[in-house]
Amino acid sequence: MGLVVATSRPMRRFAILAAAILSAAPAFAQDLGGQDLTTKAAAVRDKALADPTAWRVVESLTTEVGPRPVGSPAMARARDWAVATLMALGFENVHVEPFTTRVWTRGEEAAEIVGPAPQKLQIIGLGNSAPTPTGGLAAAIAVFPTFQAMLDQPPGALKGKIAVVTQKMPRTQDGSSNGAIGVQRFQGPLEAARRGAVGYLVRSLSTDKTRLPHAGASTPAGIPAAALSGPDAEQLERLAARGGPVTVRLVLSSSVQPAAPAWTVVGEIKGSARPNEVVLLGGHLDSWDPGTGAIDDGAGVAIATGAAHVAIAAGRPRRTIRVVMWGSEEQTGSGAAYAVAHKAEIPGIVVAGESDLGAGRIWRVSLPARGAATPAMAAFKAAAAPLGVIFADAPPKYPGADLEETTAAGAPFVQFSQDASHYFDWHHSADDTLDKIKPDELAQDVAVWASFLYVVANSDVDFRKP
Amino acid sequence: MGLVVATSRPMRRFAILAAAILSAAPAFAQDLGGQDLTTKAAAVRDKALADPTAWRVVESLTTEVGPRPVGSPAMARARDWAVATLMALGFENVHVEPFTTRVWTRGEEAAEIVGPAPQKLQIIGLGNSAPTPTGGLAAAIAVFPTFQAMLDQPPGALKGKIAVVTQKMPRTQDGSSNGAIGVQRFQGPLEAARRGAVGYLVRSLSTDKTRLPHAGASTPAGIPAAALSGPDAEQLERLAARGGPVTVRLVLSSSVQPAAPAWTVVGEIKGSARPNEVVLLGGHLDSWDPGTGAIDDGAGVAIATGAAHVAIAAGRPRRTIRVVMWGSEEQTGSGAAYAVAHKAEIPGIVVAGESDLGAGRIWRVSLPARGAATPAMAAFKAAAAPLGVIFADAPPKYPGADLEETTAAGAPFVQFSQDASHYFDWHHSADDTLDKIKPDELAQDVAVWASFLYVVANSDVDFRKP
Repeated sequence: MGLVVATSRPMRRFAILAAAILSAAPAFAQDLGGQDLTTKAAAVRDKALADPTAWRVVESLTTEVGPRPVGSPAMARARDWAVATLMALGFENVHVEPFTTRVWTRGEEAAEIVGPAPQKLQIIGLGNSAPTPTGGLAAAIAVFPTFQAMLDQPPGALKGKIAVVTQKMPRTQDGSSNGAIGVQRFQGPLEAARRGAVGYLVRSLSTDKTRLPHAGASTPAGIPAAALSGPDAEQLERLAARGGPVTVRLVLSSSVQPAAPAWTVVGEIKGSARPNEVVLLGGHLDSWDPGTGAIDDGAGVAIATGAAHVAIAAGRPRRTIRVVMWGSEEQTGSGAAYAVAHKAEIPGIVVAGESDLGAGRIWRVSLPARGAATPAMAAFKAAAAPLGVIFADAPPKYPGADLEETTAAGAPFVQFSQDASHYFDWHHSADDTLDKIKPDELAQDVAVWASFLYVVANSDVDFRKP
Repeated sequence: MGLVVATSRPMRRFAILAAAILSAAPAFAQDLGGQDLTTKAAAVRDKALADPTAWRVVESLTTEVGPRPVGSPAMARARDWAVATLMALGFENVHVEPFTTRVWTRGEEAAEIVGPAPQKLQIIGLGNSAPTPTGGLAAAIAVFPTFQAMLDQPPGALKGKIAVVTQKMPRTQDGSSNGAIGVQRFQGPLEAARRGAVGYLVRSLSTDKTRLPHAGASTPAGIPAAALSGPDAEQLERLAARGGPVTVRLVLSSSVQPAAPAWTVVGEIKGSARPNEVVLLGGHLDSWDPGTGAIDDGAGVAIATGAAHVAIAAGRPRRTIRVVMWGSEEQTGSGAAYAVAHKAEIPGIVVAGESDLGAGRIWRVSLPARGAATPAMAAFKAAAAPLGVIFADAPPKYPGADLEETTAAGAPFVQFSQDASHYFDWHHSADDTLDKIKPDELAQDVAVWASFLYVVANSDVDFRKP
């Protein structure tokens, strides 16, 4: 894998646009390793709370690029935007890491109740859905109030039917309802097909009440599969409860690229004392197509960029701070590509994090056991606690999708939990737009991460196994 | 205009469905005119609070018929549903009043930003929009933060442009922001065309933050015209603020029926003492197409039907109580048709009301000056006040769109103001669905109207000019 610095004309256009984002590029100060970390971390936190960089980054990305699914022309524009943005902010070693990945792309989509009460349904195809036959697919539905109720059906029980699972996602602060019922989207098409279904509809993994359905990936199952909006799922429940047959017609088209070009974009500030020790923070640049990828994951890209920007504004750090904008989270691919490309340097990663749960406030921080009880982390905790952060007494459980392979290969990771109470109102839907981000909450995220990056990069704290 | 009792096969199907709605049809009691109205009105109120009829009616209409724009096959199904529902509830003289009206019907619709940041826009065509040329219309936009800013442009200033007005609707309890800025939808296309624009986009008359645009009528202007979702309007504002040209492409198709068949459905209970004196309450049966017409105006149909059902359950009233389900409010037509057809009997209308502001609680009641200070209205006030209702010290200002002509011809009217704080979150959008109605709020509406109908129909109160 080569490192490619993009120099296309669109990139230069973004470089000009990105100039508007720019606060002054950092003036590198002297080694700060011996100074009072607690005082310095608090100063970084306060600077971050007032720094507009993260907001400007997410405003720029969602406005000037918009939706950017992997494999689309927009993702190439996002790559150029990322390079221009990182360069304008003074990052070093800004480069593009190309890879290829399998890509599913949505085509025409429609659904309607044919009878007994003809009306349109609001759906969105699931990633890896099979297309319907030309002219669409009409079949009677079989409605299940829970995913388990469908799993309880014997083989062949859904023969010729469109299976419909209407289980509702509950609202949770930590987003754990996604893990708890996400299987109805991921595995639903496959389990329906195994029982003979010719199509699959699932109530969106959503906590809102709008008619906007929520997209997302699913395991390839060879049948058409789509998500319904909540009110549409309830409409099918009501009609089915009347006892007669309910027929639904689906039109879903899509295409697959087995090895589409994709790109992860990286920028860093080299450490003054230990340049090969890396503090890594990222988000993912790609998004689903219906919204503009503001909370998923323009916010993460902005938080990582903004936090690093503030952390290095105080002076060149002792260790390297690296910002990573992964290029294919929604359909997988970039995490594995990153781990393979950086295999040799994984032992140098002091700690890694991914911000990929929206733009709500960080309410809980979980640190690896080794390193958590050091003076450096005491300085971080002193900076973060006034921001309303609590510190978990359990080690971090999940690094983020793009870090799975890198952390499996040994890199330590932190988990900074954002308040996800409203995240699934908008996630993967057309409603994932800039107006859903509250600037003060975004600034709190940046402040927590910036003080963490600062402390780790300017101390000897080590989370790695000895 | 003849009165036609529908007897089609679909109607009989709905009659069977409607049987499920049915509480017992009323057993007619003796003339109650001399009894204690205050006690009786309170009893009617309490019965209404527990009566499921209104909820069942709106659940049935929105589920079994769904969206029902005038001129569509669904509106014919709604007509049959209405007849079956009123008959199942024991109303007398259930009949259909046919008329014809001009109908605009939506076809294919799409919009996108062509440059500088290609992405789709969420729009919905305005009623009476002209279609775009085959292949669509692409033009630079001119963005105005207020409607007045567009009006301030001289003739020709918008030549070749798509005018965009992004003024946001504020949230109001009484819904008055619709009157205050509704002109940007109604008259916007015409005013844009007068200044040379080739197309018109308006921020939806909406108080929500979703990507669902809100439909609605506009004055024919000969140019394509559509509403943007709020986030899409803000996206165009941000791109335009960057200073370069922003090009938008519109595809809008539609068709017009100059004289489409339409129907108003009526049921009543004849008064025992004064059958020619009519207490009239209605809502409108038609809806816009994107939602299922739950709050606009399935709720009004349900409130009128449910309130009359409870008011007559106590016994046959002295005056006639009439329920009217008007058949073309959204594109106008049914109010004028009703006034013409019933011209001779308008002097017999003791009072009229239309419930057409959703399903929120009634918070204010406005009565005509004549009749307001009678013992009968004291009985009504005593029943309604515990429901959280205040009584306006000004006479009613607006009877509802379908009563404009009838009240202009002399019929007195009341205005029961519902809390519209959330009405414009969903109004005319795909989000106008059953889940937006809170059963306890709907029951409060029914209780206020039922006690009013009961008191007026069983007393000698008169709001008519002598």
